Amino acid sequence: MAVAYPHFSLSETQTAVSPPPPMVTPAASPPLTQDDLKKIAAYKAVEHVRSGMVLGLGTGSTAKHAVDRIAELMKQGKLNDIVGIATSMKTHEQAISLGIPLSDLDTHPVVDLAIDGADEVDPDLNLVKGRGGSLLREKMVESVTKKFIVIVDESKLVSHIGGSGLAMPVEVIPFCWNHSLSRLVALFADAGCVGKLRRCGGDGGEAYVSDNGNYIIDLYFERDFGDLNEASDKILRLPGIVEHGMFIGLASSVIVAGVNGVTVKTKKGSELVVDSFSYSDLRNGF
Amino acid sequence: MAVAYPHFSLSETQTAVSPPPPMVTPAASPPLTQDDLKKIAAYKAVEHVRSGMVLGLGTGSTAKHAVDRIAELMKQGKLNDIVGIATSMKTHEQAISLGIPLSDLDTHPVVDLAIDGADEVDPDLNLVKGRGGSLLREKMVESVTKKFIVIVDESKLVSHIGGSGLAMPVEVIPFCWNHSLSRLVALFADAGCVGKLRRCGGDGGEAYVSDNGNYIIDLYFERDFGDLNEASDKILRLPGIVEHGMFIGLASSVIVAGVNGVTVKTKKGSELVVDSFSYSDLRNGF
Repeated sequence: MAVAYPHFSLSETQTAVSPPPPMVTPAASPPLTQDDLKKIAAYKAVEHVRSGMVLGLGTGSTAKHAVDRIAELMKQGKLNDIVGIATSMKTHEQAISLGIPLSDLDTHPVVDLAIDGADEVDPDLNLVKGRGGSLLREKMVESVTKKFIVIVDESKLVSHIGGSGLAMPVEVIPFCWNHSLSRLVALFADAGCVGKLRRCGGDGGEAYVSDNGNYIIDLYFERDFGDLNEASDKILRLPGIVEHGMFIGLASSVIVAGVNGVTVKTKKGSELVVDSFSYSDLRNGF
Repeated sequence: MAVAYPHFSLSETQTAVSPPPPMVTPAASPPLTQDDLKKIAAYKAVEHVRSGMVLGLGTGSTAKHAVDRIAELMKQGKLNDIVGIATSMKTHEQAISLGIPLSDLDTHPVVDLAIDGADEVDPDLNLVKGRGGSLLREKMVESVTKKFIVIVDESKLVSHIGGSGLAMPVEVIPFCWNHSLSRLVALFADAGCVGKLRRCGGDGGEAYVSDNGNYIIDLYFERDFGDLNEASDKILRLPGIVEHGMFIGLASSVIVAGVNGVTVKTKKGSELVVDSFSYSDLRNGF
């Protein structure tokens, strides 16, 4: 389906490249699907891309739209001299197939801008990532980026990390993974934590293996587990744990696409600036 | 060479099994080699093994003597119902070849006693381990053991961690290892840190691969880098880092074999009890 792409650019001077014109009139727009919202957030983020940038390319269904859009603008000659750093083998393959030149952190230890999705976003822009299994490489790239724009549809907003009731993934070495699972769950006993090895194709399947040859343990929490930095250190101190899916204090801004419009939350020092726009505002060039 | 094995048992009632009688008379003893000292420390530690124990089996040239000795006592019928947990594939193979029954942490999440060597021991019994490349599995086992006896020859004693000028190893995922190396070195710039990827067969060789499929970066320090727990957290917070070779607060006691005798340092609450014995003391049944 061709997406109903609202014209939500705040002003032409703020954008690197103009978004495409609305493809359908508002009256004729079908209801926005979740995938439409992901695409809207992705396209909005790509407006921040400039020629010559080293770009962190995210992984997942939302980030995929951003990578597609970057390639499209490169083909149109609107973006040049882009170097991509893929956050997963999957994104690597996508970028290669679209003709985006790739490099790595060994060559480019500092990334200008990363655009990626998230599974949860809390009110302070802390994230859960990695339900797609790429948390480690994502964190390696996004922890050395000057600007990290997170793109989500509104279903990803939570009041606290773990609040969606869905998985908070932890990458572990395969050796004695069940022991690591028990130790992880014990750390968060007070929060009613349950842990589960991620498997391919459901409960009976083989263990899912990450790009780094590791396993993923999905943690589920009944209640808020409190301080995130403390939780992070507790997890990382367990031997056998490689990384967890909490991205604490890494996001520079979050673009949230909802059925009624787009919200952009941006960190300015210790403050959070929130701008909300309805699609009609945006179409009217607000 | 048959080792000159001094009779250093403190008393028969303190030992599970008697050490073998002196194989040579003191007058005829050749000078003790470093390997003799390793063996002396290892045999001394094995005196703490009791039938029915779940045992963490260490890795390296010193720990190997302990594993050999445990197998010997099992064959003599002096130790029964031992279950070993190997800390490396190499130790796994050694134990299997010697007939020691093995299990893992999934089945035995708590270990009664672990015996292992170390590359450095500081005055508070903090360790550097992993120059043999097995730091991760060693830490997994030795962080869940009720009692962890470290066995070293006296060359391993240092005034502070990193003080030997030899490597403090860090296990990293292979992806962008050079970037991880740079980030590690940057953490310890004030301590004159240098980092080097461990390779097989010297500088030109292939990257050394750990039992877990990861690489090892060896860090060298010109100066003391200060607080160990702070250093540990800084390292573990870097994405791409799996584990480091500092074992902080894990050792219950350290048995140090030197040319003049054996020193046993044991933690009793927050205190450290140090007992030193010359070989002549020990031979006289001190």
